[in-house]
Amino acid sequence: MTELLSIILAAGEGTRMRSALPKVLHPVGGLPIIGHVAQAARDAGSSQIALVTGPKHEAIRAAVSAMQPDVVHFEQTEAKGTAHAAAMARDLFAKAQGYVAVVYGDHPRLRGENFRVVLDRLDAGLDVAILGFEPKDPTGYGRFITDGETLLAIREHKDATEEERGIGLCNACILAFRADVFRELIDKVDNNNVQNEYYLGDLVGLANKAGKKVGFGIAPEDDVIGVNDRSQLAHAEALFQEMRRDDFMKAGVTLKDPGSVWFSYDTEIAQDVTIEPNVVFGPGVRIESGAVIHAFSHIEGAHVGPNSSVGPFARLRPGTNLAEGAKIGNFVEIKQAEIGKGAKVSHLSYIGDASIGSEVNIGAGVITVNYDGYNKHRTNVGDNAFIGSNSSLVAPLTIGTSALVGSGSVITEDVEADALALGRSRQVNKPGRAKEIFAAAKAKKQNKKGL
Amino acid sequence: MTELLSIILAAGEGTRMRSALPKVLHPVGGLPIIGHVAQAARDAGSSQIALVTGPKHEAIRAAVSAMQPDVVHFEQTEAKGTAHAAAMARDLFAKAQGYVAVVYGDHPRLRGENFRVVLDRLDAGLDVAILGFEPKDPTGYGRFITDGETLLAIREHKDATEEERGIGLCNACILAFRADVFRELIDKVDNNNVQNEYYLGDLVGLANKAGKKVGFGIAPEDDVIGVNDRSQLAHAEALFQEMRRDDFMKAGVTLKDPGSVWFSYDTEIAQDVTIEPNVVFGPGVRIESGAVIHAFSHIEGAHVGPNSSVGPFARLRPGTNLAEGAKIGNFVEIKQAEIGKGAKVSHLSYIGDASIGSEVNIGAGVITVNYDGYNKHRTNVGDNAFIGSNSSLVAPLTIGTSALVGSGSVITEDVEADALALGRSRQVNKPGRAKEIFAAAKAKKQNKKGL
Amino acid sequence: MTELLSIILAAGEGTRMRSALPKVLHPVGGLPIIGHVAQAARDAGSSQIALVTGPKHEAIRAAVSAMQPDVVHFEQTEAKGTAHAAAMARDLFAKAQGYVAVVYGDHPRLRGENFRVVLDRLDAGLDVAILGFEPKDPTGYGRFITDGETLLAIREHKDATEEERGIGLCNACILAFRADVFRELIDKVDNNNVQNEYYLGDLVGLANKAGKKVGFGIAPEDDVIGVNDRSQLAHAEALFQEMRRDDFMKAGVTLKDPGSVWFSYDTEIAQDVTIEPNVVFGPGVRIESGAVIHAFSHIEGAHVGPNSSVGPFARLRPGTNLAEGAKIGNFVEIKQAEIGKGAKVSHLSYIGDASIGSEVNIGAGVITVNYDGYNKHRTNVGDNAFIGSNSSLVAPLTIGTSALVGSGSVITEDVEADALALGRSRQVNKPGRAKEIFAAAKAKKQNKKGL
Repeated sequence: MTELLSIILAAGEGTRMRSALPKVLHPVGGLPIIGHVAQAARDAGSSQIALVTGPKHEAIRAAVSAMQPDVVHFEQTEAKGTAHAAAMARDLFAKAQGYVAVVYGDHPRLRGENFRVVLDRLDAGLDVAILGFEPKDPTGYGRFITDGETLLAIREHKDATEEERGIGLCNACILAFRADVFRELIDKVDNNNVQNEYYLGDLVGLANKAGKKVGFGIAPEDDVIGVNDRSQLAHAEALFQEMRRDDFMKAGVTLKDPGSVWFSYDTEIAQDVTIEPNVVFGPGVRIESGAVIHAFSHIEGAHVGPNSSVGPFARLRPGTNLAEGAKIGNFVEIKQAEIGKGAKVSHLSYIGDASIGSEVNIGAGVITVNYDGYNKHRTNVGDNAFIGSNSSLVAPLTIGTSALVGSGSVITEDVEADALALGRSRQVNKPGRAKEIFAAAKAKKQNKKGL
Repeated sequence: MTELLSIILAAGEGTRMRSALPKVLHPVGGLPIIGHVAQAARDAGSSQIALVTGPKHEAIRAAVSAMQPDVVHFEQTEAKGTAHAAAMARDLFAKAQGYVAVVYGDHPRLRGENFRVVLDRLDAGLDVAILGFEPKDPTGYGRFITDGETLLAIREHKDATEEERGIGLCNACILAFRADVFRELIDKVDNNNVQNEYYLGDLVGLANKAGKKVGFGIAPEDDVIGVNDRSQLAHAEALFQEMRRDDFMKAGVTLKDPGSVWFSYDTEIAQDVTIEPNVVFGPGVRIESGAVIHAFSHIEGAHVGPNSSVGPFARLRPGTNLAEGAKIGNFVEIKQAEIGKGAKVSHLSYIGDASIGSEVNIGAGVITVNYDGYNKHRTNVGDNAFIGSNSSLVAPLTIGTSALVGSGSVITEDVEADALALGRSRQVNKPGRAKEIFAAAKAKKQNKKGL
Repeated sequence: MTELLSIILAAGEGTRMRSALPKVLHPVGGLPIIGHVAQAARDAGSSQIALVTGPKHEAIRAAVSAMQPDVVHFEQTEAKGTAHAAAMARDLFAKAQGYVAVVYGDHPRLRGENFRVVLDRLDAGLDVAILGFEPKDPTGYGRFITDGETLLAIREHKDATEEERGIGLCNACILAFRADVFRELIDKVDNNNVQNEYYLGDLVGLANKAGKKVGFGIAPEDDVIGVNDRSQLAHAEALFQEMRRDDFMKAGVTLKDPGSVWFSYDTEIAQDVTIEPNVVFGPGVRIESGAVIHAFSHIEGAHVGPNSSVGPFARLRPGTNLAEGAKIGNFVEIKQAEIGKGAKVSHLSYIGDASIGSEVNIGAGVITVNYDGYNKHRTNVGDNAFIGSNSSLVAPLTIGTSALVGSGSVITEDVEADALALGRSRQVNKPGRAKEIFAAAKAKKQNKKGL
């Protein structure tokens, strides 16, 4: 495969987002927009990736470096147009062999195969190949002026004649060049236009003038949507979700109401998992076969073992690991915890920083007290132990196998195997006393009203 | 602006709703249908509003008076048609200057600008101007018989010829008149028809006969939908929600899945708020910039400060006030409570009738015991205090700054600053006792089976 | 009504489902697909129902017998085609009077009236009547070759000429015969085709050859969709839900957002019930008039009395019975429990295996401790009792009328009427001690960092 340098442009301000967060950091499927583009560039076989950002875009640079450490950063200090932005990556394209692809960083549905469409045209002998698409409504897009398979120019909407505006084929978001051709032409772009900006699209006309072979490829509209405002962001998210839902159903996952299940870019779900309506998967989730995810569950950074049952109304936070056949019930939160084979945490519990053994029964309302205001501490519960309802397990704490904690206990010291632990008071009944207390409370209420 | 009297008709029975609640009290976006209409009349610049209701409609009158105290009520004791209903407001229109607009009370999407369309026609010199629309399916609607810009008559569907039924322009829900013209004509309507009713639409023909200038304006269909059954109610709600979602996204709010977020008529959300899927906003909510509302949250009557985090699975009830950077976590209910700057209530808690200081940490499962069966009592927790998990704070109660409450405590008396408070028993371990208890329970189970 | 034997074919493997569960056991609206078909056959007036399954289909046979015990089972040991499968039911059709209808078992939207369409044709004198439909996309379906009202043949898609593929009328899923005609023809089907299978559709050609009168009826496409993969399963579920939502709205139920409420096949909801967005109804639910089901509720096997209030965030599990005006609040789970008239369980509670009297107030965080690891025990709470927050009621237990349980108590022994019961420790305050504890925790944290 011919060497490829991809230059991703992300120096724009994105003011229509009305956001303090840079546009390309808004997430789609839990991954920043720019992450999708960088991944697409990678999948297309880029040997090098350049990222051009603006002066206040440290957050973008940090985010991309965290995802792909070998991306090389360039800064465009003044907003002088897309060709000017691409030229910032000179250190890389000056030495580039093979191809250079310039791609817009705000296209979250872009995939490696969209690059391939134009790269294949270069492989077939073209010098320049631009990705186009046929939008339902072409208003506002640059039109492709073509002669057969030759792309003569990209005409901006505002400069187009009435007839040219009738053209349905428009400029998408990838411009691919033989590296030597890119180097030959990039500095010839001028800014003789209303905005005084250097436009990438002008390379098409320059290439034709220089006798280069210029053509185009075509992408489906849904792959090349750009994000400029929150509605387009929501639309991109919807397209992402639709694709994931279809993929999972094809793979043998039951979604009772596909439209009410939200996946992340990296969610993994095995065959024969059933997912009820209204489930949110944050990043880092893997669900194994036979598991059932009941309605109203929120799962992030968790591994759910085979034949487990989760929810309804369960929250699994990062570091959760459910073994086979574990059961997490309603109003239960699990965090940084191993839940053993067949263990049950069925109601109203918080289990954090803990290892729960196999076949353990955690009663309703049990809470692991894992935080002292400064440090987190761990709780270990041995196999087959039974923790009575409404108990507090004050960590650090170890409870032995087959031990029993009485309901309502506060447990601060370790419990050996097979022992019963109690930390609660004896009950006292005071006959007739309720009557007096209620009478006093009632009188107080009436007094208040009387005032 | 010319003076305007709006007469809202709400005397109908609405039997197709199949409801004990009067039709116009069913809510859309949390506000009764009639409230939307009254607000539209107000926004249109009405100096006076008359409301005509039926004899059993005390609930409607009370609801409207609560929203707009200066609305004047009239009762139509017998169901004799729309013109007869409008005539009930004689006390007001007898003295009205300027214009009279008669409007149907069951049109929840109506806005002030829909009135303006016909009022502008009066301003331009017409005597009568009727609001029309072009429904996708005109079956059942009164058709506009026109001659150029003149409206000659409104032909009821059942009286229309085949040719007239081909007309796409139909009667909507606002009829506007010069006040003197309205007075001149209203008593000339007769009931010589199959139903023996007095129809408002007949005013159009009468006005033409009297040589008045009669015209029309046009509204978008979605603005002038009437509600007659629960499906139409659901449709009106859907249109309302769609508009609110679009408005918020344009204003810089991120909605991950717009279709799964439900707003109220008065919801206020600042720029750069992120809202995950599945969030319900009841009336009276204001969210400040930078806040994140996680999935499965239910928020009503609450103020959420900047950069706060709410949910997933959080319920904020009326009287909740979160300061900057507060964090409300999963399975937490807050009611009539101030939550201080940076304070955290992360898991499984009920905080009601309370003031929680800044940087306070409320442990999992903590409950404010605010009710004695008759009276509500308040809990005050000072800055930087730490309330251990599973504790009960029995109000009235004051806990000092930087105080510490041990996990599992029942706190009934005030705690001074920097003090540790405990209200729990010492733990006792009984070696081997769990084994005996489990053996007995198991035997009992087997006995039962044996019987 | 003429006697009817229905033969349901469910011997197929359903490999495109990619599931260990047999295809026809996947549920739609909470009922297995095969249950919908068997119910439709029953509603059509079948006097006998035969079910033909494959050798490994014990689970299907068990499920159908549980729903309709008088269904007669037949096994097709080898996959030799649909006519061969139908022939397995020879014991029944050999003696059948009247009609025989052969129906595919993977059509979950089928209703009795779809059978009636073809049975009515038999009543009118036909010997054979096949159910057809006009799919939006006929690709893949068998085409009806007709001559006026006579059905000459069913041409499989792959055998059809280009012209025949232009036919829009296709084979659906019910083939009905006069019983004697069915007997006469069924053994004449041969397997002279590419797959060497015996096809039911061939009966049409054979019937014509034998001079029988063969016709057809037509069903709406949505009634006769088959399920072959998870996307079609989701589509069938969506159609089921749409029908239920419309039916309920017509009957006077308010659904704020119909698309976010999921019903089961047997859900019963009275007039003037309001259902907020995001509610899941499992099987066995009945809701009475005036009840409000708030958002994010999950209800299964429960009766909700008139004017009750449920949720938001409530879970009612099987055996729940709410009396009039009961209130179940947020993060509350009820199971196998009676909740008395006007009783309240408002926050963060688990009430299982219990009888709660009328006007009882259950405080926040109260838990019935009903399980000892082997046996379930019951809790009884008398009328007007008040159970303080965060208490544990250790069953078996009886609490008398108007008794009061102090907050944070563990109650293990019965409480008489009007008595106050406490099971908690006295509070101890240790001045200045919090400061020392926090200092130690902070030092520990800093130590860790120092390492």
